[in-house]
Parts: sequence; C-alpha cells; structure tokens
Amino acid sequence: MNLNNIISAIKATKTIAILPHIYADGDSLGSSLALNMTLQKMGKNTSVFIEEPIPFIYDFLPESKAAQLFSGNNQIFDLVIALDTGDLGRLGKRIEIFDNAKITVNIDHHFTNSEFAFHNYIDSNSSAVGEIIYQLIKMMDQKLDSEIATCLYVAIATDTGGFRFSNTTAVTHQIVADLISNNVNVSEISQKVFDTVTHGKVKVLGEAIKSLELLEYGKLAVLTISDETIKNVGAKDEDCDGIINTGRNINGVEVAILLRVKENGEIKVNLRSKNYVDVGAIANMYSGGGHKRAAGCTVQGSQEDVKKRLIDDIKEVI
Amino acid sequence: MNLNNIISAIKATKTIAILPHIYADGDSLGSSLALNMTLQKMGKNTSVFIEEPIPFIYDFLPESKAAQLFSGNNQIFDLVIALDTGDLGRLGKRIEIFDNAKITVNIDHHFTNSEFAFHNYIDSNSSAVGEIIYQLIKMMDQKLDSEIATCLYVAIATDTGGFRFSNTTAVTHQIVADLISNNVNVSEISQKVFDTVTHGKVKVLGEAIKSLELLEYGKLAVLTISDETIKNVGAKDEDCDGIINTGRNINGVEVAILLRVKENGEIKVNLRSKNYVDVGAIANMYSGGGHKRAAGCTVQGSQEDVKKRLIDDIKEVI
Repeated sequence: MNLNNIISAIKATKTIAILPHIYADGDSLGSSLALNMTLQKMGKNTSVFIEEPIPFIYDFLPESKAAQLFSGNNQIFDLVIALDTGDLGRLGKRIEIFDNAKITVNIDHHFTNSEFAFHNYIDSNSSAVGEIIYQLIKMMDQKLDSEIATCLYVAIATDTGGFRFSNTTAVTHQIVADLISNNVNVSEISQKVFDTVTHGKVKVLGEAIKSLELLEYGKLAVLTISDETIKNVGAKDEDCDGIINTGRNINGVEVAILLRVKENGEIKVNLRSKNYVDVGAIANMYSGGGHKRAAGCTVQGSQEDVKKRLIDDIKEVI
Repeated sequence: MNLNNIISAIKATKTIAILPHIYADGDSLGSSLALNMTLQKMGKNTSVFIEEPIPFIYDFLPESKAAQLFSGNNQIFDLVIALDTGDLGRLGKRIEIFDNAKITVNIDHHFTNSEFAFHNYIDSNSSAVGEIIYQLIKMMDQKLDSEIATCLYVAIATDTGGFRFSNTTAVTHQIVADLISNNVNVSEISQKVFDTVTHGKVKVLGEAIKSLELLEYGKLAVLTISDETIKNVGAKDEDCDGIINTGRNINGVEVAILLRVKENGEIKVNLRSKNYVDVGAIANMYSGGGHKRAAGCTVQGSQEDVKKRLIDDIKEVI
C-alpha cells in the first residue's frame, strides 16, 4: 500500500473524521491537528475526535481547540483516518465513528500494526507519524505554514525524545530542517514540551531521592515510592512516570529498580538497565514482561522481602 | 574574512596546533577532535592541547586521547587554530603556543569575539563551531567518517541543548542529517551526554527540592542550598549547576531563585525567568548582572533577610 491510494480517497470525499489514539500523545495530536488544518485548506469538512482532554503540555498546539472530546456521535463520515493507532482497541469508544464511516484509513509507524482499515499505510522506518503526514502534505502539493509546521515539529520532536532515540534518522532531521524554516519557535516549544513539570512530580522526585540506595559498588540503584508518600505530598500516581530514570542516569549505574508500594499491599516493580543486563528476563521470573532495557512486574510480599529477592536476582547478573 | 584564507593557510603549513577554550565543552572538544582527525588524514602533523582533563561525560569521544593536557610547550607551530574561543583569556596558559606560532587562526561563533588572530572567521549564525568545522571539511573536499561525524554531532547537539535552544536553525538540522548518515549512534551518545548525572548531583537535587517554596500563587519558586548541605551529602559545588531549572520548570512558575549560602556568609543568588520578568534588572539592583531570563548576584546578609528582600523585589514585577 502506498500513500497515493489514500490521497485519492481524500480527494474523492467531503466529510472526514481524524482519530488519534487513546491517551493521545504529542505525535498523534500533532499529526492529527496538522492533517486537519491541511484538509480544511483543501475545502474538506473535517472533525478531530479525542478520547480524553488534551494533556496540559499540549494545550498550546495551534488549532488544538479543533479537537473535540468524544461523547458519542451518529454522523456517518465519508472517510475516517486513524493516526498512530496500532490496533482498533486504541480507538476506545470512538470505534463507533470508525465502524460507521464509508471508507477507512489507517496511517501508522508501529510495525506491529494490525492493518485494521481498508487503506493501511504503515511505515515503521518513520520516527513518528508526523513524518508520514509531512510526506502526505508534500505529495498533495499543499503548503506548510507556521501552524502546521509547529504541529508536525511537536509530533516528531516528542516521538524521538527530542531527537535522542534510536528511531531518529537523517530523514527525520531533513524534515525538521524544512519544518523549522516555516517559522517554528523551537526554544518556546521545547520549554513547554520537554521542560515543564508539575509541582507534584518535583515533590515525588524529592521523596524518591530520599529513598535512593546505591548498591553493588554503585551499579544498582533502588528507589521506593509508596501510595502513602504520594498522598502525603499531594501528588498523583502519574507523577511517578519517568522517576526511575533518575536512578538509571547516575554515572556508573547499570540497573535501576523502582518499587511502587501500593495501598493494597502489592508492589509494582519497574526495572531499567543501561548497557548489558537483561531486565526483561528478571521481570519474567515474576510473571512480568518488557524488553531488555525496560521491564516491569507486580510482586506480592513485604517491601523488604521483595526488595531483597530482586537485589539477589540482580546480583547474579550485574 | 572567509574560510578560503584559512584553508590556504592550512594547505601551506605542516605542523598545526588546535586549541579549544579553557574548561572545554562539547562544542570546543568535538570540533577540535573532528578537525584534528581531518587534518591528520590530510597528512598534517597536528596536536590538540587542552587546559584541563576532559570532563568524564566526553571521555567516549572518538580519538579523545589525542587531546593532550597542556603543561608548557616550547614548540613553534607553523599554524595554531583557536576554536570557540571568544578572547585570548579563554586560552589560559596555552597562550604560549598561540603567541609562538607562525600563523594564527581564530574560528568562533560568539558575536562578541575580539578577533585576536591573523585570520579570524566568526559566524554568529552558526549554532556551534561544529557547524563551521563541518563546512570547512566540506570545502576542503575531505570526507566525513563515523568518528568525525560523531565528534561534530556532539559539538552541535550540546551547544544547541539537544536542538532545543533558539540558536537551532534549519541549517543545523540539515548538517545533522548528513552527520547521522555517516553512522552516528544517536541514542548511545544522547544517553551519555544528556542523561548522565553524578550521584552527588542527585543528592543535591533532593536537598534543593526539600527546600522548595512556591510563593505568589505558584509564580515564584525559591530553592536554597548551603555549602554545609553540599558537604553533608558528599557533593561538589559544580553539582549545583542547573538545579535552579527544577524550580523554573514547574508549571505556572515565572521566576525561580536559587540561594547558595556560602561558608563565608555571602549569599550567591541565581535568578531565572520563563516569559516576562526581567531578572537581569533585579540582579542589577544588587550589583549583579546577566540577561532578562538568566541572571545572578552576590548579596551580604542573613539568609532570611536576603530572601525576604528578593521576594519583595520580585513581587513588584511578577
């Protein structure tokens, strides 16, 4: 499948719905808003439906108000385009719109994509769907403007972790060069997207650092955060996201463990490694899963026991 | 002045010394090592002299061992090239090599450069000297390889704050696209350069977060770190670098203050703002200096008094 069939479908239709995945991130939101603006300039009657409110760090995206919070919709669209959506489950309740549409399109970069639409375009070499939408816009002979370029820039910058992940290619930077030349405020966007934290997250980070232990000659970092701590500092569960990196990033550390002590007595364990330890294999021993460098599991037992067992397991391989 | 005069000088000489600035950073080191490898491929007899040992996060740079720690040198080089060096003071003790050389070259991107050499090439539109060295290599018809590209990538990535600062241009990304296509391990480098912290820094961060106060309806963040705290946690003064950003980055904060309470009773004050407060003007009131968004001053007085005075000043403008 190539993009030409999708372009033909777009040209032949009038009402078009655009669907990013549930819990929309920078790539799915930025790609959806950029495609929406482009299709409107082409005279299409478009709608963007989102499952949840836009995360506050993406509030600034141009024309973000075009994204409507979905609460049921009986309209039958000529065309529906799912973006960055690996399978139908990632459409949430908006599957209603997808199922009712006359023609369905699926544009994604996850190689595991289930190809659930009539037209499927999956390019796993693209760092972000934003790269594919950029190519689509060029192929339709549409012009970039500051707003569209800003949305695509955010899409690509976020899905590459600020051009730092291994998915970042020469093509990524070539596209970004063109986007930036269309008046994108790089420093302001970067500040908003990468450097904004909640007060709750800073407080959780402070508590996690208090708990930090460096073991095995500095190769193993252990962090602990309990539900009680989160409640005491007035933070939210999501404020724990990424905290484990503080342990992993310490010079000399190979493995970091984050123990999330839950109210129900369970311990959710996050594992990260830097160079050689397969933490996925360790998580598997506790019926968890993941990859070599990032994995997780849920373990029953007292905090001290669980910690000791994990440290003993990791001692063997570190 | 253009690069052609410098290329002619390089072609006409045999022994060449390359000098990054004192406290060499990613740009000056990466540019120096890339230029060194290129000139060696051209058959030149080159030396790179550094004033201090290479910071540990740059140890991995290809051919970093080529950089010699300077401890006096009587050699008279045919040509000396200072890189990323705004004025002669930034050469430290290595001015001896510069003064003794037959021909002197100065390649920089600081618009304040004092043009201290015989051949000066200053391009303040370049995000990094790495961009200029890239152009120089191309103009000399030399080839990039993985090692040279890696050094230039680190030069540009670090001086643009990971392509996030306002100096990042379309040309920056075009150059990086070419560098990456020469086999640069983006994710490994990014991990080493951007995501490596010392244990001391993490501990100082934890202490700074303990001290965090949010005032003025969450628009003003105040952090305090004393020399005593740094000593107690076994950290170093440099572990405080960048800690103020933790305050500034909190959602809703406009101004962050970091009070560094020194052993001699002085208080070193760092100030950052996000959007509209001119912290340079505030620092000026205390005989300090800086820019609108980043400034500093040193104030005499008790910690409580100095904090109260600063808060009162900032209240007026926040």
